Amino acid sequence: MTESATSSADAIKAAIEAQRQPMQALFDQLHLDGLDEPGVSRDPYGAGEQRAHATVTRAAKALGLQIGHDAVANLYMTLPGHDRTAPAMVIGSHLDSVPHGGNFDGAAGVLAGLAAVSALRTLGLTPDRDITVMGIRAEESVWFQVSYIGSRGSLGTLPDGALDVRRIDTGRTLADHIADCGGNPAALLAGRRHFASGSIHAYLELHIEQAPGLVEADRSVAICTGIPGNFRYPDAWIEGRHDHVGLPRRFRRDAATAGAEFAMALDALWEDHESRGIPMACTLGRFHTDMAAHGLTIVPGRFHFSLDVRAYDAAVLGELDREVDRIIDGIEQRRGVRFHLGSKAQAAVGPVDPAIRTGLASAAKAQEIPVLQIGSPASHDGAAFAAAGVPIGMIFVRNENGSHNPHEAMTIDDFLDGVTVMAHWIVENLV
Amino acid sequence: MTESATSSADAIKAAIEAQRQPMQALFDQLHLDGLDEPGVSRDPYGAGEQRAHATVTRAAKALGLQIGHDAVANLYMTLPGHDRTAPAMVIGSHLDSVPHGGNFDGAAGVLAGLAAVSALRTLGLTPDRDITVMGIRAEESVWFQVSYIGSRGSLGTLPDGALDVRRIDTGRTLADHIADCGGNPAALLAGRRHFASGSIHAYLELHIEQAPGLVEADRSVAICTGIPGNFRYPDAWIEGRHDHVGLPRRFRRDAATAGAEFAMALDALWEDHESRGIPMACTLGRFHTDMAAHGLTIVPGRFHFSLDVRAYDAAVLGELDREVDRIIDGIEQRRGVRFHLGSKAQAAVGPVDPAIRTGLASAAKAQEIPVLQIGSPASHDGAAFAAAGVPIGMIFVRNENGSHNPHEAMTIDDFLDGVTVMAHWIVENLV
Repeated sequence: MTESATSSADAIKAAIEAQRQPMQALFDQLHLDGLDEPGVSRDPYGAGEQRAHATVTRAAKALGLQIGHDAVANLYMTLPGHDRTAPAMVIGSHLDSVPHGGNFDGAAGVLAGLAAVSALRTLGLTPDRDITVMGIRAEESVWFQVSYIGSRGSLGTLPDGALDVRRIDTGRTLADHIADCGGNPAALLAGRRHFASGSIHAYLELHIEQAPGLVEADRSVAICTGIPGNFRYPDAWIEGRHDHVGLPRRFRRDAATAGAEFAMALDALWEDHESRGIPMACTLGRFHTDMAAHGLTIVPGRFHFSLDVRAYDAAVLGELDREVDRIIDGIEQRRGVRFHLGSKAQAAVGPVDPAIRTGLASAAKAQEIPVLQIGSPASHDGAAFAAAGVPIGMIFVRNENGSHNPHEAMTIDDFLDGVTVMAHWIVENLV
Repeated sequence: MTESATSSADAIKAAIEAQRQPMQALFDQLHLDGLDEPGVSRDPYGAGEQRAHATVTRAAKALGLQIGHDAVANLYMTLPGHDRTAPAMVIGSHLDSVPHGGNFDGAAGVLAGLAAVSALRTLGLTPDRDITVMGIRAEESVWFQVSYIGSRGSLGTLPDGALDVRRIDTGRTLADHIADCGGNPAALLAGRRHFASGSIHAYLELHIEQAPGLVEADRSVAICTGIPGNFRYPDAWIEGRHDHVGLPRRFRRDAATAGAEFAMALDALWEDHESRGIPMACTLGRFHTDMAAHGLTIVPGRFHFSLDVRAYDAAVLGELDREVDRIIDGIEQRRGVRFHLGSKAQAAVGPVDPAIRTGLASAAKAQEIPVLQIGSPASHDGAAFAAAGVPIGMIFVRNENGSHNPHEAMTIDDFLDGVTVMAHWIVENLV
């Protein structure tokens, strides 16, 4: 810390406290913008996300931040630093949500960035380099079944073919959706990226915790120790045979029962890892008979599912991948069905920068905010930055009722605790 | 047998053989009428079933049969007997199908009746009483989730409220659909029934076998020993909690995994009964996450299913019913979810008339057609007649690939074997 006494721990805390009312108002406006009972839907590159971008842009302009966009239509809100040519500090998260999700997953991280730079202004501090608050597009893979679209688009690391995938509800391509929102898919295809290599000093993201770890431990804030890698089959299905409801068991090739056996085998695998203290997660998010052909009196001949398996250790993830194949082999043999896994998506385990992690912990200590240190239950845009070689850090804020549902519940007190840690770290490291 | 030598076993066989070409043509026309690739859809009280009724009516008129209808829009095609006041012999089955079903489930029984009465004509025989071939409406419960609508409508045994149920695809009520097709829902509601008590001599139905029992045994025809009773939950669901894909296992209330555990427990129950030689069947025909809320990265908070459990013994059925409740209790406790079973439908075990069963077996023997004697894998309109106190018999015909799917495969040879047994029985018992 190189500047005046206004940057004492107490002053930082007071400057963040001053953000309570404006931030609450901004969360309320975002809730209204996204309202789609039950919960909010901020559909990426659609009306819901657009309204959130408009609201956040208005707030950033009121703070005097410089507004910019890139070819993938991300929003950049920059507080200029002393050295405008130095690699910028990026603070961000995403502004989209799952369908009928909550108000905080994603948006909290963008508002945290705005609150932190506002606090710098209040404190009369200018950072040594630009601090860019980033409103990232389309993080939630439920819509396009591609993850980190906005962050990877800014980094030039979108997978091949991503622009051709279709949003599952509209059926229109990502390229069309990006163009709708003022982006430039042709430039993306030609290789344009917002962040040249080495142009980012570090990436910091605040996010609600998507598990009740902090609720259980009665803490408001956690420092992230790592982001899990995953492998995913977004569109898998099981081929059996449709038959009459009276068919004896030995003749059946019931695709749904095969799906149930698969789910139970994965659940047992997870239970075993849990008992050995190896963190992982496994989710069959879509798990369903064929809507066009199923019925009360029909043995299901087709069963569809999506699979997401995640872990914090590349070796564990690799072994889980092989185990899934072994489980499928057994079920195919026992039940006369065939699994069609379809396309596979993978994300590497996302390491957190040790210096940032340590710095965040000491900022929390200086602010007398007791924190947990935990692995992220979820994937985040931060993982895309980590994969691109950017040093990253993450702050989690306590949240009741999980996320990806209308009942997310982060209090403004806990949010301000998280932002206080963030602002203290900025003052310690960038001023 | 009281009439001339033209009714010898060989003459009956020849008269049925003469029906080969007209029946093949009629099956082909029905296939064309119902075509809805893959397979055929004869939607009850809709375009598909209507076309089948029109085709069968045309064929019956060409045979000189008397055509009639009732308030539920069933089709009656009558060959007058010597004593027109005696209780009529009814031979029938249904003309509807499941969505994208096969060409034979139901229709084969109607065509069998037409072929049998045609053969009587060829043989110059007049039955002692009217023989009415019945084209029954809406047997498949997949559409209205009410079974035996046509047969129970003719008998005055439709359950209360049946006219108000809605077809799952159109959303319109059964009453509206019946009125569309020339029926009279107001008269039904006022208690009108086609068959007064005691007005039916017996009911005989030929149906494709809905399991590969005859295929395995290399026989063309089976005589039915009983129709299973069942209990059904057409619209059950499991309430869990939608959560984020990264949530640790101990915090989850995953409705889909709860559904999978339910399916596996029922499968184990069935395997146990099978190993003890107790026939039953158990089907989760619809088994799916919530289309409006599921996704790759969402722990399923809602899971829907339909359940059909059937057995040939009322005591076994009752014990299975209690066992389902015990399984649910355990899953609710282990997984923090709640089962909502919704409305329950039940059908009593349907006994076959011993004299008809014996008579059919001896007719087969006289025709040198080796038969199996088997329990029906499926429910049938015959069960509605049996429940109303009518003596019933059933003939099954070999069928590859199961039923309720586009790949039903009954050969015309096997069909004619079944009709030969039916015609021989008629000649022995009604002439």
